[in-house]
Amino acid sequence: MSPSRMDKPDNELRETLEDRDPNKLNQHIQIVWDDIIGEPDGARSPECAWRLSHICFRHTRNVCYTLLAVVAAPPCAFILGCGFACLAFEQIWCTTPCLRCVKIYFATLRTLVQSCMAATVAPVMEAIGHIFRHIRVNVRRDAPEERDLLIV
Amino acid sequence: MSPSRMDKPDNELRETLEDRDPNKLNQHIQIVWDDIIGEPDGARSPECAWRLSHICFRHTRNVCYTLLAVVAAPPCAFILGCGFACLAFEQIWCTTPCLRCVKIYFATLRTLVQSCMAATVAPVMEAIGHIFRHIRVNVRRDAPEERDLLIV
Amino acid sequence: MSPSRMDKPDNELRETLEDRDPNKLNQHIQIVWDDIIGEPDGARSPECAWRLSHICFRHTRNVCYTLLAVVAAPPCAFILGCGFACLAFEQIWCTTPCLRCVKIYFATLRTLVQSCMAATVAPVMEAIGHIFRHIRVNVRRDAPEERDLLIV
Amino acid sequence: MSPSRMDKPDNELRETLEDRDPNKLNQHIQIVWDDIIGEPDGARSPECAWRLSHICFRHTRNVCYTLLAVVAAPPCAFILGCGFACLAFEQIWCTTPCLRCVKIYFATLRTLVQSCMAATVAPVMEAIGHIFRHIRVNVRRDAPEERDLLIV
Amino acid sequence: MSPSRMDKPDNELRETLEDRDPNKLNQHIQIVWDDIIGEPDGARSPECAWRLSHICFRHTRNVCYTLLAVVAAPPCAFILGCGFACLAFEQIWCTTPCLRCVKIYFATLRTLVQSCMAATVAPVMEAIGHIFRHIRVNVRRDAPEERDLLIV
Amino acid sequence: MSPSRMDKPDNELRETLEDRDPNKLNQHIQIVWDDIIGEPDGARSPECAWRLSHICFRHTRNVCYTLLAVVAAPPCAFILGCGFACLAFEQIWCTTPCLRCVKIYFATLRTLVQSCMAATVAPVMEAIGHIFRHIRVNVRRDAPEERDLLIV
Amino acid sequence: MSPSRMDKPDNELRETLEDRDPNKLNQHIQIVWDDIIGEPDGARSPECAWRLSHICFRHTRNVCYTLLAVVAAPPCAFILGCGFACLAFEQIWCTTPCLRCVKIYFATLRTLVQSCMAATVAPVMEAIGHIFRHIRVNVRRDAPEERDLLIV
Amino acid sequence: MSPSRMDKPDNELRETLEDRDPNKLNQHIQIVWDDIIGEPDGARSPECAWRLSHICFRHTRNVCYTLLAVVAAPPCAFILGCGFACLAFEQIWCTTPCLRCVKIYFATLRTLVQSCMAATVAPVMEAIGHIFRHIRVNVRRDAPEERDLLIV
Amino acid sequence: MSPSRMDKPDNELRETLEDRDPNKLNQHIQIVWDDIIGEPDGARSPECAWRLSHICFRHTRNVCYTLLAVVAAPPCAFILGCGFACLAFEQIWCTTPCLRCVKIYFATLRTLVQSCMAATVAPVMEAIGHIFRHIRVNVRRDAPEERDLLIV
Amino acid sequence: MSPSRMDKPDNELRETLEDRDPNKLNQHIQIVWDDIIGEPDGARSPECAWRLSHICFRHTRNVCYTLLAVVAAPPCAFILGCGFACLAFEQIWCTTPCLRCVKIYFATLRTLVQSCMAATVAPVMEAIGHIFRHIRVNVRRDAPEERDLLIV
Amino acid sequence: MSPSRMDKPDNELRETLEDRDPNKLNQHIQIVWDDIIGEPDGARSPECAWRLSHICFRHTRNVCYTLLAVVAAPPCAFILGCGFACLAFEQIWCTTPCLRCVKIYFATLRTLVQSCMAATVAPVMEAIGHIFRHIRVNVRRDAPEERDLLIV
Repeated sequence: MSPSRMDKPDNELRETLEDRDPNKLNQHIQIVWDDIIGEPDGARSPECAWRLSHICFRHTRNVCYTLLAVVAAPPCAFILGCGFACLAFEQIWCTTPCLRCVKIYFATLRTLVQSCMAATVAPVMEAIGHIFRHIRVNVRRDAPEERDLLIV
Repeated sequence: MSPSRMDKPDNELRETLEDRDPNKLNQHIQIVWDDIIGEPDGARSPECAWRLSHICFRHTRNVCYTLLAVVAAPPCAFILGCGFACLAFEQIWCTTPCLRCVKIYFATLRTLVQSCMAATVAPVMEAIGHIFRHIRVNVRRDAPEERDLLIV
Repeated sequence: MSPSRMDKPDNELRETLEDRDPNKLNQHIQIVWDDIIGEPDGARSPECAWRLSHICFRHTRNVCYTLLAVVAAPPCAFILGCGFACLAFEQIWCTTPCLRCVKIYFATLRTLVQSCMAATVAPVMEAIGHIFRHIRVNVRRDAPEERDLLIV
Repeated sequence: MSPSRMDKPDNELRETLEDRDPNKLNQHIQIVWDDIIGEPDGARSPECAWRLSHICFRHTRNVCYTLLAVVAAPPCAFILGCGFACLAFEQIWCTTPCLRCVKIYFATLRTLVQSCMAATVAPVMEAIGHIFRHIRVNVRRDAPEERDLLIV
Repeated sequence: MSPSRMDKPDNELRETLEDRDPNKLNQHIQIVWDDIIGEPDGARSPECAWRLSHICFRHTRNVCYTLLAVVAAPPCAFILGCGFACLAFEQIWCTTPCLRCVKIYFATLRTLVQSCMAATVAPVMEAIGHIFRHIRVNVRRDAPEERDLLIV
Repeated sequence: MSPSRMDKPDNELRETLEDRDPNKLNQHIQIVWDDIIGEPDGARSPECAWRLSHICFRHTRNVCYTLLAVVAAPPCAFILGCGFACLAFEQIWCTTPCLRCVKIYFATLRTLVQSCMAATVAPVMEAIGHIFRHIRVNVRRDAPEERDLLIV
Repeated sequence: MSPSRMDKPDNELRETLEDRDPNKLNQHIQIVWDDIIGEPDGARSPECAWRLSHICFRHTRNVCYTLLAVVAAPPCAFILGCGFACLAFEQIWCTTPCLRCVKIYFATLRTLVQSCMAATVAPVMEAIGHIFRHIRVNVRRDAPEERDLLIV
Repeated sequence: MSPSRMDKPDNELRETLEDRDPNKLNQHIQIVWDDIIGEPDGARSPECAWRLSHICFRHTRNVCYTLLAVVAAPPCAFILGCGFACLAFEQIWCTTPCLRCVKIYFATLRTLVQSCMAATVAPVMEAIGHIFRHIRVNVRRDAPEERDLLIV
Repeated sequence: MSPSRMDKPDNELRETLEDRDPNKLNQHIQIVWDDIIGEPDGARSPECAWRLSHICFRHTRNVCYTLLAVVAAPPCAFILGCGFACLAFEQIWCTTPCLRCVKIYFATLRTLVQSCMAATVAPVMEAIGHIFRHIRVNVRRDAPEERDLLIV
Repeated sequence: MSPSRMDKPDNELRETLEDRDPNKLNQHIQIVWDDIIGEPDGARSPECAWRLSHICFRHTRNVCYTLLAVVAAPPCAFILGCGFACLAFEQIWCTTPCLRCVKIYFATLRTLVQSCMAATVAPVMEAIGHIFRHIRVNVRRDAPEERDLLIV
Repeated sequence: MSPSRMDKPDNELRETLEDRDPNKLNQHIQIVWDDIIGEPDGARSPECAWRLSHICFRHTRNVCYTLLAVVAAPPCAFILGCGFACLAFEQIWCTTPCLRCVKIYFATLRTLVQSCMAATVAPVMEAIGHIFRHIRVNVRRDAPEERDLLIV
């Protein structure tokens, strides 16, 4: 993202501020001006219209988002805190022990299935596999021209 | 894009002006004269007609686009600002936490599915795979000519 | 997970405390603030709202989980202790000897199946496999241009 | 395209004039005499008929094209100028921002689909893939002649 | 399995005691505390609840298993002794001689099948295999760009 | 094409005259005597009949073609001149600009299709592709003879 | 099989005694204590119960098998002696000469089938095999990036 | 073709005479005595019968062919001369210009089809192609013998 | 076959006696004590029962076979002598000359089939084989990571 | 063909006489005594019967063939001479010129078909071929043993 | 075939006598004692019975075959002589010239079929073959472990 003149305040701001997404969770939310609007060669609006549009977009976006965040973010965080605590307890004390129990039974089942397969299916498949036993490949690099069958 | 004489003003203009599409969003909008009209060998209009057509195209295009940009661009930018702010809030505070919750449950499900598969499907497939155990390839480089079966 | 300023107490705490999941059983339960909420460039809430949300989430989560753990964890552990003792006894003294018995019978069956296959299926498959006996590959690196059939 | 004597004026003209198709848009329009008419060995018309035909073709072509270009090219250029200006505005201020919005939603959808697949389809496919685990290839270069089964 | 403080008695005990599963028959029965319960970052119960749960689990498990082993293991061993003795006798004096007899007959059958196949199926398959006799591969590393068919 | 005595006049003529097909448009029209008539060993007509036939063929061919060329070639050239001029104008001023317009819309459509595919089809296919993850190939050069299953 | 203390008498006994299965006929009959019972970590019965079970199993097994062997083995051996003598006579003097006779007829049949195939099926298959005669593979290591078709 | 004594006159004649088939048009017409009649070992007719048959064949063939050539060859040559002249004129002045016209239209159609494919089919196919993205091949040269599943 | 003490008489006998199966016709008839009965570890009958069984088996087998051989072998040999003499005469004087006759006719048929195939099927298959003419493989070793389509 | 004593006259005769099949037309007619009759080991007729049979065969064969050749060969040669002369004339003066005419038309048709294919089928197939663009193969030589999913 | 004592007369006889099957026509007629009867270890008839059977077989076989050869061989040879003479005449003077005629016509047909295929089928197949033009294979040797999608 090469900086244009209008984004400079944004950029400077960015470097001095902390990074609020260290795990790159929301990298796909690209809502900066340069990610949305771009004029190629041949289609160039006058300077005033361009600057006005940019300022218009940037301030509308910031005002809207700040309002939403101040009003709705803390309640969201409260709900998420409760929910993830219950989820964690259920996973740690119920699901994981059950999975251990299931794994022990499946290990026994696996031994049974493996023995059965080793006695019945595997020998049949090995016998059928004898079909690939006579592969004979002749590789030649400078083959002579073939004889024409219709001429002596 | 090699410059022709008629495009020179465009080109000089380009270099002195800023680049308004740093992320190459609209590289496919190729509306310069050389991208649309070209006369090959054997079909060559007189100089006057060619120049007149070029000037006609360039000025019509610029006037039209400027009018549209001055009138319609700032309202567009206002609407986009509001829309992307809401979109960002909804993604950051609702969708991403839900995805985290979903991922935790899917991780448990994956362990269950993997255990079940390791006990039932995997041994059966390993047994069936014994069919590929007898592949024997004889590679020869200078094979002798085969014996003709119909002659002693 | 790069540390942000708000997580520092957590991090320091972590290093001084013991590791309660040495077998990495529950690595998928990622419920720290940075794993759930992140603000990308362009969507930045005011400092106060951000800090308030973070504190709100962290304390809610800890209080909820501690309550659940104090009340429900010891009874869970009691039930798990009984269950896994019975499971272990049943596996060690019943299932494993039965599997040994089954394996002895399957070893006999395998010999029978292998003999039958070696006498009937394997020779048929070897005969069918003679289809791959005449593969002759001519590999050329700088092939001459082919003659055009429609010109003398 | 090797020059014949009749084309020389064309060639000289070409080099002194500007190149009117720098982007090679209309390279497929090959309407020079040598691209359309050619006499092979054995079919050779008399010199006078050949020259007359060539002159006839060249002048008819040039006169026709010049007339069409003088009359119809500038209006065409006017229409194209208007059309491409509107097209560019619509692409820059409407289509590209919508595509950005669509991409943000699809990024979330992709995470959901990937998680679901990683939990359900991928383990099943890995288990089925065990079928390719017993491939054993014996490669021999100078294989001994096989024993004839019908002789001791 | 990294040792935690609570498991130390277990570990020391282990090394001084004999190994009761030298053939690794029951490696899948993982019923130690660390294999069943683990708390990740962000979900940390208070020290007292954690220790109480651990002690609760460990003693319940040991008491249950010891009771079962003292009461039920010797009778199990008695039954297993009888059963495996009969199984061994039946395998050694009946099944193995019968398998030898079956193998002798199958060896004759194999010779018959091989002769029949060598006379009928093998020659047909060899003849059909002539389809792979004209494989000619031209491998080029730096192929020239193909000529465009629509331009002279 | 090796020269025979009868063709010599043709050949000399050829070299002194200009090449009337520099782009090899009509190389497939092979109407010289040697391309049509040839007598192999064993079938040899008397000298007089052979020469008479050759002269007969050559003069008939030349007279016929010259007559046709003198009468019909210039009108043909006139019609071709008009036709190709119109064709060129239509291609240069209508078809090529329309194609540019179509390409701009298709570029947008491509971005939409690519995003949709990256979110839905690609993850599913990647998951299905896990089937190729367990390919294990054992390659041996001097494999020991297999043990005969029907003998101890 | 690592020796445990209880098996030592068995092991010493083994080495001094002769090997009664030199052809490894009954290797699959694994009825020693360590092949049937094993206690993993976490499930450890008291020393007295463990030793009692082991002694119980070992003596029961030996007494049972000795009784069966003394009573039933010699009659079995008698029957096997008669049966295998008849089987051997029938194989040597009847089956093997018949197989020789069958092989002589099959050798004639093979010649007939081979001649028929060489005259009819083989030429057809060779002709069909011409389909693999034009394989041309261009292998490139550092391919240039493809040109985007939607941009000039 | 090795010369026999009877063919010597033919051979000498051949070398002194001109080659009447320089383009090898009729190489397949093999009507010399050695190409038609041959006596192998064991079937040998008396010298007189052999020589008489040869002379009989050679003179009959020559007389017949000479008669046919003298009577029918010149009219044939006349008809061929007319026919090929018309054919050449039609090809040079009608078919080739039409093909050029067709090629110009097909070049435009190709651009349209390519753009459409690049926008719709190509991205779908690329997404489907992700199925080949997880191919993992383990190649081992000296693989250890597999563990027998039915033995500890 | 490692020698046990009981077999020593057999072994010594073997070496001094002639080899009665020089062509290894009946190698599959394995009726020695070690090929039929074997006691693994854990199942060991008392010395007396083991020796008694062995002696019982060996003498029963030898007595039975000797009786059968003395009574039935010479008549068998007489019948086999007659039969194989007739079989040989029929093969030498009838079947082999007929096969020669059949081979001569099949050689003619093969030439006819080959000519027909070379004229009809082979050219069609060569034309169809042009489908493999545009294989272009780009092999790269260290491919760069692909660009994410959903991010600029 | 190794010479036996009876064939010596034949062999000497052969070398002194001319070779009557220089083009190997009738190599498949193998009617010498050694190609038809052979006695293997074990089936040996008395010397007199063997010599009588051989003389009987050789003289019958020679007398029969000589009679047939003297009576029927010259008329055959006469008919063949006429037939092949007509065949040659028809091929040289009719079939070959017609084939040339057909080839000229097919060359034009080929250009038309190639242009049509290059515009319609080829771009579609290239787009479909993008399915092979994401092949990623990981080749490992010493792969680590896979982790058992059923054990921690 | 290793010599036993009983066969020595046969062997000595063999070397002094001529070889009556120099072309190995009847190698499959294996009627010597060692090819039919063989006694393996464990089944050994008394010396007298063995020698009696051998003598019985050998003399019966020789007497039978000699009788048949003296009576039936010369008439057989007479019939074979007549038959093969007629066969040879028919092949040399009828079948081979007809095959030559057929080959000449098939050569013309082949040219026609090849031209037709080169104009119609071959270009279509080449266009369809463009499907293999985008194969791109990334081969990596030490691939990094894939990122787990369900963990940040």
